[in-house]
Formats: sequence, structure tokens, C-alpha cells
Amino acid sequence: MSVGLVSTERVVLHDEDDPLVLSGGATLAPVEVAYETYGTLNEAHDNAIFVCHALTGDAHAAGHHGDPARPGWWDNLIGPGRPLDTDRFFVISPNLLGGCQGTTGPSSTDPATGRAYGTGFPLFSMSDLVSVHRRLLRHLGIDRLHAAIGGSLGGMQVLQWTIDAPDEIGRAVLVAASSLLSAQNIAFSAVARTAILSDPDFRDGQYAAAGTRPAAGLSVARMMAHITYVSEQLLDEKFGRDRVSDGPPRMGTDFQVESYLAHQASSFQARFDALSYLYLTRVMDYFDPFADPRAAARAASYDTRFLVLSFDSDWRFPTHHSVRLREQLAAAGAISEHVEIASSWGHDSFLLKPPGYHERVAQFLA
Amino acid sequence: MSVGLVSTERVVLHDEDDPLVLSGGATLAPVEVAYETYGTLNEAHDNAIFVCHALTGDAHAAGHHGDPARPGWWDNLIGPGRPLDTDRFFVISPNLLGGCQGTTGPSSTDPATGRAYGTGFPLFSMSDLVSVHRRLLRHLGIDRLHAAIGGSLGGMQVLQWTIDAPDEIGRAVLVAASSLLSAQNIAFSAVARTAILSDPDFRDGQYAAAGTRPAAGLSVARMMAHITYVSEQLLDEKFGRDRVSDGPPRMGTDFQVESYLAHQASSFQARFDALSYLYLTRVMDYFDPFADPRAAARAASYDTRFLVLSFDSDWRFPTHHSVRLREQLAAAGAISEHVEIASSWGHDSFLLKPPGYHERVAQFLA
Repeated sequence: MSVGLVSTERVVLHDEDDPLVLSGGATLAPVEVAYETYGTLNEAHDNAIFVCHALTGDAHAAGHHGDPARPGWWDNLIGPGRPLDTDRFFVISPNLLGGCQGTTGPSSTDPATGRAYGTGFPLFSMSDLVSVHRRLLRHLGIDRLHAAIGGSLGGMQVLQWTIDAPDEIGRAVLVAASSLLSAQNIAFSAVARTAILSDPDFRDGQYAAAGTRPAAGLSVARMMAHITYVSEQLLDEKFGRDRVSDGPPRMGTDFQVESYLAHQASSFQARFDALSYLYLTRVMDYFDPFADPRAAARAASYDTRFLVLSFDSDWRFPTHHSVRLREQLAAAGAISEHVEIASSWGHDSFLLKPPGYHERVAQFLA
Repeated sequence: MSVGLVSTERVVLHDEDDPLVLSGGATLAPVEVAYETYGTLNEAHDNAIFVCHALTGDAHAAGHHGDPARPGWWDNLIGPGRPLDTDRFFVISPNLLGGCQGTTGPSSTDPATGRAYGTGFPLFSMSDLVSVHRRLLRHLGIDRLHAAIGGSLGGMQVLQWTIDAPDEIGRAVLVAASSLLSAQNIAFSAVARTAILSDPDFRDGQYAAAGTRPAAGLSVARMMAHITYVSEQLLDEKFGRDRVSDGPPRMGTDFQVESYLAHQASSFQARFDALSYLYLTRVMDYFDPFADPRAAARAASYDTRFLVLSFDSDWRFPTHHSVRLREQLAAAGAISEHVEIASSWGHDSFLLKPPGYHERVAQFLA
């Protein structure tokens, strides 16, 4: 069942008297965070589950904002009777630092100038995402989570959290994630950033003030990234070589798969911001927590249990990323298991319901 | 041994009195072709081997133009004692129709307007590439080839040739090729074209007249394509997560793999044309010769022998493309074999010398 009508809350977690100190040394204020909650916090305050979204996600994970036909991005996972059972758990889902859906990010207004931070926004790290979300947790009166769960970048953030504050997370579910990006992963991100940065409408990040948007660059970034989110097999099954028309060949959009990508790009324009894309992909590029040999020991230092899930058709973060991650945890003595789920949908499987996936999550959280 | 100093010839194969009639019905004149030859045509005119280049190749396959340190792109394969042994064979290597290295293409001058054809250049097909090269063959006084060989798009062109004129090719070597692009293949091409077409400096294809170049769009196209030309493993081995500097994280180029891609893009700018990129990727998208059930029978109707080669780390045209291609030929009775070569370099393996590759080609041509 769906959680039904929900709304997004906003809270200022840092202000000028108490700025966020980033891991690189810079400070940031104010820091506002958008979040949603589903279910009820119990009296012991020990039934909370934290949801960390992926690169282009937002706080609206479940329920709807007025139109039940347009539910949140993880609505199939969260709700009464669902794996994140809101009859039992209190689920928290914020937009992350650097985002563009209500939480402070590079397109937010810099109080020092009265215009967008733009490329003047300080670089931040996975640990900084965690800091902000830990502050949100305190704001909600919670010291320790029953569980934290995230897919892709979200899973990486959960992993960082277990390193930075191992006592705060009872169960960690890392879905389609990685403990470090490969050279190919970084390469794809680099191309996406180049597309955005070389769009003349980017205006050095001050596009809002200029009344423009780097729509072309962001479209190319999204189209390319989307190819990496789905499997070759899925694209073949869904589109193959089908064409939009049966006329003669033409340079413009003709194959169904082209039309599909163009649609992806255009709906992405409506909801995402180019600066957030630049900054958040960079957070992923630099993420490499186990480069510090003490990190895995920290993650294993409390009683956190880890469930690492991967999908066999995911070529963005293939199963070997999850296998490595789990081995790194296990070597340090963490209680961990890895399960590969069969699914033909590629990386985006974490948003869908391939057989066995939700069952494993439900079992693990129960 | 290298063939040494060589030069590129040019010949006008079609003029206004004898225009090229494209498969789509449009006509084109003049059609000039740039080509190189290595070795000597024997008296019987039966020792010729035709080389078809890949998407961004050119006529300069072997030897050098003055600097022995900068040989042609297939110099390791062509020369005295090499698999395409110029002591024995007469090797012909032209730039293809639609190219930008001496053969007529969309950036050539349209005699009707005095400026570049631009997007007014007619669309053309794989068969049109073959028609032009068959005309070149006639010009050179050759009726039948000992062999034709090509990698990637070049292999696809050789395949089309065996369908259009099965009596003209004794041995066909199709390396890292395909008989049809997958939805994912088309998707990558679509993103590349979108990057070029949305660059404001593209100027609807009239960038030469405007004194601009869609450098940013072409860079993004090339960077993305380059990722697909090399294996994930190769990028990991070559660059891993190595950085250019050891300073703090930054938005600009920092990882070695980023620097490498930027270098690829910049050297590509110097040698390739955006309009050619658009048109030639479209030729590949529409290539699907066996959609006509008579095609394989035509390829098998003479005594052409086929060698289909693939590389196990190629994810642009993975081995299953070659397996399918060979099965389609074999089902029609063609004399064919497929060999998968072990190589960690991905699609670009066809330009390199993984063990067993050149040996197989030499054996097959002998």
C-alpha cells in the first residue's frame, strides 16, 4: 500500500552562527535541508530508517504530492506492508547537500552576493553529505537508526556513514553501490561535466542570473548517463532497431531508442540542475573511503550488519564492485553478506522490483 | 618492415556528366577520392587487397609522409613481410565517401552554392561507400580483389561489398565488425550527434563559412566514443584512479583518465570534421544488410571466403555480433570461420597486435 499524500518539509540546520564546516575546510551557511518522513517515530525512537537517494534523486521517495499516479521514486519499497514498512518503521528521506530539490546546493543563493553560488560553491565530500544528514537526525530527535538504505550514490553515502559514525546505524543496505569508481566510471562523469561546462549557456555557473540554462549540455550528460543505467539487453528488448517512422533514413531522430533518450533528456531538464550535476558527480569520483586503511575497521567497530546487493546486468557498478566492497568490510570483521540479484534492467534495477530483491531487503530489515 | 615514404593520391571518379547516383536517389558530383597504394600490382592484376577504414580513419594506412615516427594507422599490418605483405600484394587504401581526408564529404564545396554542402549533403548508405570504392577499383584496372579487409565500420563495408558484388572479393576479413548495430550502439551515436548538433558553433553545418568549428560538441562526441573503444580493464590498468596532482579535490581535470580523454578530444579536433562524424555514424546506424533475406545468399553465391574476427574485451561490437554475422553467412552456405582473439584492449584491439591476431590474418590471406 502507498503511504498516500505526503509533503516535503524544510529545515535550516546550519546558520551563520553555526555554519557547516566542510571536510575541505570551507564553511557554508545557511544549510537548509528538504526531507520527507513516512510512518511514525516510536516512543523509544529506535524504529527509524534513513533513505539516501542516488545522484539525481530527491526527498520525495514515497507517497504522492496530490496525484497518486505520480508517486515518489522508491514508492514500491516504502509503505504499509512494503519492505520499509511504515506501519512499523519511521522512514526519513532527505535531499542531499549539493542537491537542487530543496537542500542547499550550488544553485542556492549565496548570502554574500545575493546570487547563486555557481562555481564558487565549495567542493564537498561524501563525509559532508553524511554530516548534514546526521544533523537532520539530531533535529528529529534520533540518536541511532534501525537501518540506513541507499542505491548507487545513496549506498555509497550509507557506507560513509558507517565509517564516520559506526554506532549510529544498526543495519546498512548498500544497493548497486561501490567503494570506489573505476577509471571508466570517472571517464563517463568527465564527459558529462565537459558537456555541461562547454555549453555557452552555462555562463560560468551564473546561468540563473543570466536568464539561461545549459540545457543542451545537461541533455547530453543525461542521455549518455542514461545509457549506462540500463542494460544492453533491456534496450534491445524495449527498442531494438524499431523506428519512429517508416520513411527514408534521416539525420534527425528516427530510431525509437533515440526518441526515448530525447524524452529522458527533456524530462530531466525540468527537474534537475546542471551545477548539482557537476558537484555531485565529483563527490562520487573522489569517494574512496578504504584508501584509508582504518576505514573498514571503523565500519566494523560497532555491531552494524551490512547487506550488499548488486544486479547481474548492472554495468555501471557491476557485481565485482559489490563483491570488493563486501570483501573489504568482511576483512575488517564486519557482519556482512552480498547477494547478486538476477535482473535484466541494469543499474536502474535498484528502483524496480526484480524477483528476490525486495524480499531480501524486507527480511534483512525485519 | 615499413613501406617507407608514401603519398596520398586523388582522383575524380564522378563528374557532372557522370554523377554518383546514391541508393536514396540523390546524385552527387564531383566525387573525388583520396587513396594510397602500397606494393605493386602484378601483371595478372590479381594480387590486390583492399583496405576499408573505420569511422574516423583515412587513406593513410601504412608507411609515412615524411616522419617515420608517425606511420599510418594500420602500419603494423601492412608492409614487406607483414600480414598484408607488400612484397606480394598490391594494397589499396582509400578515404571513404562522406569522409574529410580528401574524399568528397559534407564539408566539401557544393558546386551549386560555392560553399560547404553542410546538412544539405544527401544521406548515403553502406552500399554507396561500396559503389565509390568499386569505381576506384575500375580506375586502377582491377576487376577482382584477392582480398578486402576492414575493421569496425570498415568490416561492415567489406561485408556490404560481398553482398553487392560477390564476384569481386576472393577473401573477406571482417574485424571487430557487426551486421547490425544494437539499440545501445545507436544510442551512443545519437548522443554524439546531439552533442555536435547542439553546439552553437555548428551553425547548421555552415561553420566553415562562419569561421567557426563545433569543437566542443565534437570533443564530447569523441570522448564518449573513446570510452567505448577501450575496455574497462584497460582503463583501470592504464590509469586506475591516478591523479595529475596530489592537491585537494577540484572540479577541473584531475584524474589521469580525464587528462587522457581531453588529449584524445584535442588531437581529434585537429584531424576530423563534425559533419563527417554525423553522416558516417548515421551510415552505421542504418546498416542492416541481412534485413533483406536475399543478402546472405548473395554473399554466398560466389566463392568468397570469410574470416570474421572479434576480440574478447570489445564491448562496442562484442563477440556475439561476430558470432551472429558468421551464422548469418554460414546459414546461406558461405565459406566462413569466426575466431575470437584474446585481448585486453577492447574494440581498438583491431589496430593493435594482440597475440594470434596478425598470424590469423596472414594465414588467411596467404
